[in-house]
Amino acid sequence: DTRIKPDTPESRLREKPALLTYLYLNQSVPCLDGPPDPLLFYRDWIGPNKPCIIQNAFNHWPALSRWTPEYLRQKVGSKVISVAVTPNGYADAVNGDRFVMPEERQMSFSSVLDIIEGKVQRSGVFYVQKQCSNLLLELPELTDDLEPHISWMSSALGKLPDAVNFWLGEKNAVTSMHKDHYENLYCVVSGEKHFILLPPTDRPFIPYGVYQPAVYRQRDDGEFEVVDQSDSEKVPWIPLDPLDPDLQRFPQYRRARPLHVTVKAGEMLFLPSLWFHHVRQSHGCIAVNFWYDMEYDIKYNYFQLLEALCDITAST
Amino acid sequence: DTRIKPDTPESRLREKPALLTYLYLNQSVPCLDGPPDPLLFYRDWIGPNKPCIIQNAFNHWPALSRWTPEYLRQKVGSKVISVAVTPNGYADAVNGDRFVMPEERQMSFSSVLDIIEGKVQRSGVFYVQKQCSNLLLELPELTDDLEPHISWMSSALGKLPDAVNFWLGEKNAVTSMHKDHYENLYCVVSGEKHFILLPPTDRPFIPYGVYQPAVYRQRDDGEFEVVDQSDSEKVPWIPLDPLDPDLQRFPQYRRARPLHVTVKAGEMLFLPSLWFHHVRQSHGCIAVNFWYDMEYDIKYNYFQLLEALCDITAST
Repeated sequence: DTRIKPDTPESRLREKPALLTYLYLNQSVPCLDGPPDPLLFYRDWIGPNKPCIIQNAFNHWPALSRWTPEYLRQKVGSKVISVAVTPNGYADAVNGDRFVMPEERQMSFSSVLDIIEGKVQRSGVFYVQKQCSNLLLELPELTDDLEPHISWMSSALGKLPDAVNFWLGEKNAVTSMHKDHYENLYCVVSGEKHFILLPPTDRPFIPYGVYQPAVYRQRDDGEFEVVDQSDSEKVPWIPLDPLDPDLQRFPQYRRARPLHVTVKAGEMLFLPSLWFHHVRQSHGCIAVNFWYDMEYDIKYNYFQLLEALCDITAST
Repeated sequence: DTRIKPDTPESRLREKPALLTYLYLNQSVPCLDGPPDPLLFYRDWIGPNKPCIIQNAFNHWPALSRWTPEYLRQKVGSKVISVAVTPNGYADAVNGDRFVMPEERQMSFSSVLDIIEGKVQRSGVFYVQKQCSNLLLELPELTDDLEPHISWMSSALGKLPDAVNFWLGEKNAVTSMHKDHYENLYCVVSGEKHFILLPPTDRPFIPYGVYQPAVYRQRDDGEFEVVDQSDSEKVPWIPLDPLDPDLQRFPQYRRARPLHVTVKAGEMLFLPSLWFHHVRQSHGCIAVNFWYDMEYDIKYNYFQLLEALCDITAST
């Protein structure tokens, strides 16, 4: 008898949000072994907002074998690119009572490689991470080595990516925990990336603060100073470091259930929209990611409601 | 520059949940003019959890022309079917401090038609509405007149319907506001159905109470009595009537934004999972609906979180 059976208040009260969070989630990030069918990918991963790894999804990219330091020097060595420079590897992160952004430095690609290969010593941590479709805009010479979009993803979503980004960084370069409003396909070309992932439904367990924006600036003596952007509005950001969470200060984070996943060369991570993520990498790791704008549908709406309710709870 | 731009607390505080609710919704229920592609239907309607009407989706069903009272009497007149009988048309609805279910009466199909066609006078309101795949189980002789599932929906969801239900009712038969955990394709074969729809995100504005279950029972003198099911657990249900909402008692319902939609013969309504709905019909309206089990994914999770937060708010 499939007649509507109203669930009892008892049964609803027994179900705690923290437990519910994981009904739809795997305990680890599952792995697909090839490019999926667009409808199946939409139904199984994009729609449910679940991360997965896809292997053998870009084996045919020449980049996988070509993108050695020698090739990159020859092909784009003289090109000037934007590099994020910080004293500690943390670009776009909370530092004390400030939200500190990196010094954005224009450098030739070969001088970045000199630093990463250890041929030149510089103070600071360098990370090519400009998220403005920098692959297409700053390094168009490399686009023949890969595809401008992921065809099954574009079919699934019915649109092309908003941005294709190129990432090259030092071991100490860290992306602090945050979320993006993009469906993200993250392709590791060489080395490996380490992601810590938290679902949007963990929002109540993730602390936010509001911080004065500032930028790092390296002085002539090599030391970094923090310069306030006093004309900018304050920025909400996550002060918690998932590698060393301060549970005295943020006890609610005990209820979060972070997933750890390593994405190796040749693998692609589907990082769904609004998932919180923290990223590290092996030294000199090269990656390309595709940002597809998310749909502002009921999931987004639920998330916003959840945020509003967290704000109310935090302020009472 | 598509760099991550943290939204400001000001901008977030400006956005009220009640307004946000409708960012993803249309002000009315849109209409498609033919059967959709499975991926497009998933992406545009199932995934976003948005209702729509589909015209010309089952023009080829013989039922559309065949299902006259004469044909039905000849084909299934002698079959015994389950009929919900109530004094007032409200089956499964709050009545005072009780949740009252209909008397489930076994009757021949022709005697139901006698009542609906006015050939016989009976007290009470009659509604063939047994939601147990009654078309396939009780009226298998009619299945040649339609399809056992909706092929593009089954492709989109990768599964067959859990139930195919047959509906035939009097003008006064009303389905009180509730939600189902099904993706619902509701096909009107003759007459018309009037739906009042509210999105799951309106849950905070929809009152729930907890009620003693009971059933109607018609006595020999024709009067109905209400018989408690004293061994059953109490049932949470919605006491509000969207046709005449008591805004003194339920002021939060002012923030709800019900959508009204009429589904005519030959039209199909996609009623997404967890949408609240209240249903009326023209006298003798015949309909068939397909229930596909919903995915218990992040949307369900968000909904449960929202319910838990409503419970907390209601109890403080």
